[in-house]
Amino acid sequence: MLRNPLLVPDLRELIQAGEIAAIRDFFADQHPAHVAEVIEDMDEDEGDTILAVLPDRLQSSVMSYVDPERQVRVVEPMDPVKAAALLHLMSHDDRADLVNRLDEDRVDQILRHLAQAEREDIRRLASYEEGTAGAVMTTDYATLNPNLTVREALDRLRHEAPDRETIDYSFVVDPGHRLLGIVPLKRLIMASPRARVDEIMQLDMIVGRVDEDQESVARKIDKYDLYAIPVLDASDMLVGIVTHDDAMDILRREQTEDILAFGGVATDAEADDEPYWQGKLIGVVRRRINWLLMLFLAESFTGNVLRFFQGVEKSMPDLSLYVPLLIGTGGNAGSQTVSTIIRGLALGEVMPNQVFRVLRRELLTGLMLGTILGILGFFYAWIFRGQNRPFSAVIGMTILCICLWANSVGAVVPILARKFGIDPAVVSAPLITTLVDATGLVIYFTIAKMVLRI
Amino acid sequence: MLRNPLLVPDLRELIQAGEIAAIRDFFADQHPAHVAEVIEDMDEDEGDTILAVLPDRLQSSVMSYVDPERQVRVVEPMDPVKAAALLHLMSHDDRADLVNRLDEDRVDQILRHLAQAEREDIRRLASYEEGTAGAVMTTDYATLNPNLTVREALDRLRHEAPDRETIDYSFVVDPGHRLLGIVPLKRLIMASPRARVDEIMQLDMIVGRVDEDQESVARKIDKYDLYAIPVLDASDMLVGIVTHDDAMDILRREQTEDILAFGGVATDAEADDEPYWQGKLIGVVRRRINWLLMLFLAESFTGNVLRFFQGVEKSMPDLSLYVPLLIGTGGNAGSQTVSTIIRGLALGEVMPNQVFRVLRRELLTGLMLGTILGILGFFYAWIFRGQNRPFSAVIGMTILCICLWANSVGAVVPILARKFGIDPAVVSAPLITTLVDATGLVIYFTIAKMVLRI
Repeated sequence: MLRNPLLVPDLRELIQAGEIAAIRDFFADQHPAHVAEVIEDMDEDEGDTILAVLPDRLQSSVMSYVDPERQVRVVEPMDPVKAAALLHLMSHDDRADLVNRLDEDRVDQILRHLAQAEREDIRRLASYEEGTAGAVMTTDYATLNPNLTVREALDRLRHEAPDRETIDYSFVVDPGHRLLGIVPLKRLIMASPRARVDEIMQLDMIVGRVDEDQESVARKIDKYDLYAIPVLDASDMLVGIVTHDDAMDILRREQTEDILAFGGVATDAEADDEPYWQGKLIGVVRRRINWLLMLFLAESFTGNVLRFFQGVEKSMPDLSLYVPLLIGTGGNAGSQTVSTIIRGLALGEVMPNQVFRVLRRELLTGLMLGTILGILGFFYAWIFRGQNRPFSAVIGMTILCICLWANSVGAVVPILARKFGIDPAVVSAPLITTLVDATGLVIYFTIAKMVLRI
Repeated sequence: MLRNPLLVPDLRELIQAGEIAAIRDFFADQHPAHVAEVIEDMDEDEGDTILAVLPDRLQSSVMSYVDPERQVRVVEPMDPVKAAALLHLMSHDDRADLVNRLDEDRVDQILRHLAQAEREDIRRLASYEEGTAGAVMTTDYATLNPNLTVREALDRLRHEAPDRETIDYSFVVDPGHRLLGIVPLKRLIMASPRARVDEIMQLDMIVGRVDEDQESVARKIDKYDLYAIPVLDASDMLVGIVTHDDAMDILRREQTEDILAFGGVATDAEADDEPYWQGKLIGVVRRRINWLLMLFLAESFTGNVLRFFQGVEKSMPDLSLYVPLLIGTGGNAGSQTVSTIIRGLALGEVMPNQVFRVLRRELLTGLMLGTILGILGFFYAWIFRGQNRPFSAVIGMTILCICLWANSVGAVVPILARKFGIDPAVVSAPLITTLVDATGLVIYFTIAKMVLRI
């Protein structure tokens, strides 16, 4: 789905002709989120070129909307002075994240060109642990002294406003930077110019802690309908704020994670922020194999139930004892894949035109998962079926093939759904499980027929 | 999980002693979201009593945080004059929703006590279709005339501010109420007092349409990091705004819906806003049976695959032909239930101490679903197994029992997970499917043993 099919060819021409001024004109007055969208729709190189030539202020705001890998690609080759100017304009939380992704030497070169206070601010924000409030907060807020009059406070804000992300809320701090209260701009406007800030400030405050889980802070913003939440360190000093738009992003990631978990893919702090394409396959396999192994063991118990009831049907053949294990494993692998793809589509990381790239990746994952489970299945059958090698080989090969097949179905069906305008989330785990059940049996008996020549 | 275990007994005493003043004191200066939380933790009657005696302004803000049924219970018996005063103070979008839930006669009695403009505002907001931007927007915003000077604009906002939810952004409209631009309060503060509003207003605006899907509008707020989005009607007139906190709520509901869909429960506009307990069981069954029926038909095809391969294993008995159908149906019903419960837990609608109430509801649902599918299964077996009544009865009864069992497992396991401090979302569809597979076979062969006396 190319969101801007018409303007891409025009832009491409401008890039090839090196018409930098025209490119800048093209994006003048456009919302940075929209510019980022166009950039993401172009080929990787073209997008990087556009981002690199944008006027300074627009470039710095677009940086917040493009993916972290692209930020690094664009800043790496930049002249250090120019890179420092870019960091100066960027939002405080995003530039700290960027610095964490750059080479340490490179960071030193760039930061040298910034004022000491700004350098320290970047270093401090970059030092907080991933996943905490500290790692997502910004230091770009306005503070007020409690003894100022409303008139003085307004003068001060008027002076600071051009450099601040927001002055809609000001944070009142004592000389030790301890948080005393919050003053909405609205209250300053309404109050008498001679009133003092500490007379009109809001005292009941919801606060976050710098080492608090970022989801917990985001949930407070959501629950109390806040515009921003002040973040305090262990000694109650104000060290940053988290704003409502960051909270929304955090909660969105968290909730799409639930889909992953529900599909049977283990999530962990590392995986939380990992876009679909960035995860190393080995990490993906690690997060999926535990559940699959556990479920495999549970399903092998299902086979034992059948074996137990073999008395009921004297004639129950050995092949059918393995049916629940095989179709169960296929369904589970398929559920995992479909949840991964649905999440990727929901976060805009997987595009509907990437079906072959997705398929390749999921086949590779299926190959690794299927090999592990197939070997396990071989030995399982080997033990329970009197060390019959051909029979055990049928079980092992079937598991491998079913994993490959289930991963393909789970990858392709939600993408096709999106292509046909159907919400990919309706491609449910039960649907994939059921699809894989019947076809899995065909695979099973076909392999059995070939190997066992029956 | 009682979130405020210590204060509940104290409050209970105050309620029983009728100490209204003490109850009011108890909640003075507390955030309305927190007050609502305490109310939801009490017994239903006690919570209603507290809400009814709160001071006017607090009561009106707490209303926005308690569930819609409670709002109705509290307003229904109120004196119309008092109810009108409450509506006057409530946020514009929430009071329109409330009016839609009250008796039409009752609404007439109450609205009579409000000024005509306010009455019309409520009626208009209440008239928009559920699920559209119109139904979630508020009319409580500040407008400015483009010809005002900055000084005049600030005077006007200062005057209006006490009655407005927000003045952080003002909307500039022409005499026909067509939207011309947006002025952040920050710009007004920074601009020269003699500048004109239309010189400093923002012209590039992201807007929503009154009949646009509420999720689409919420996604714009998220994407462009907006504080609020103006909503226009067909003739470009400004009719309301949707704020960031409402957008967050909309996106949260939408994303928990994905869990439902992924579990194989059909979602529709009606179900979107329906808390767990409010849905009529018949509606729940309707939304679940379609998928189950479709998957049932698909799984019966799986049985036919086995039948086709009966040639491979000459001795394959008839009972095992139905294994995939039976355990598949159990897994599907279980996935639906677990997704429903996970969503209820995520939205705070299902509490971990309600396990028996949940179990009762899910058993009833399972009974209805199981009866429908069981009858279908009976006739399916009847046709394919030479009209053998006892054999078909085994299939029908097994389906009924497996549905009841799968619904119980799907209901209890995520709640227990939460009780033991495990994220209920890790109770995945594959886990429930696998749990139900083995136990489903035990149910199957036990019934077969009893009925067929083998």
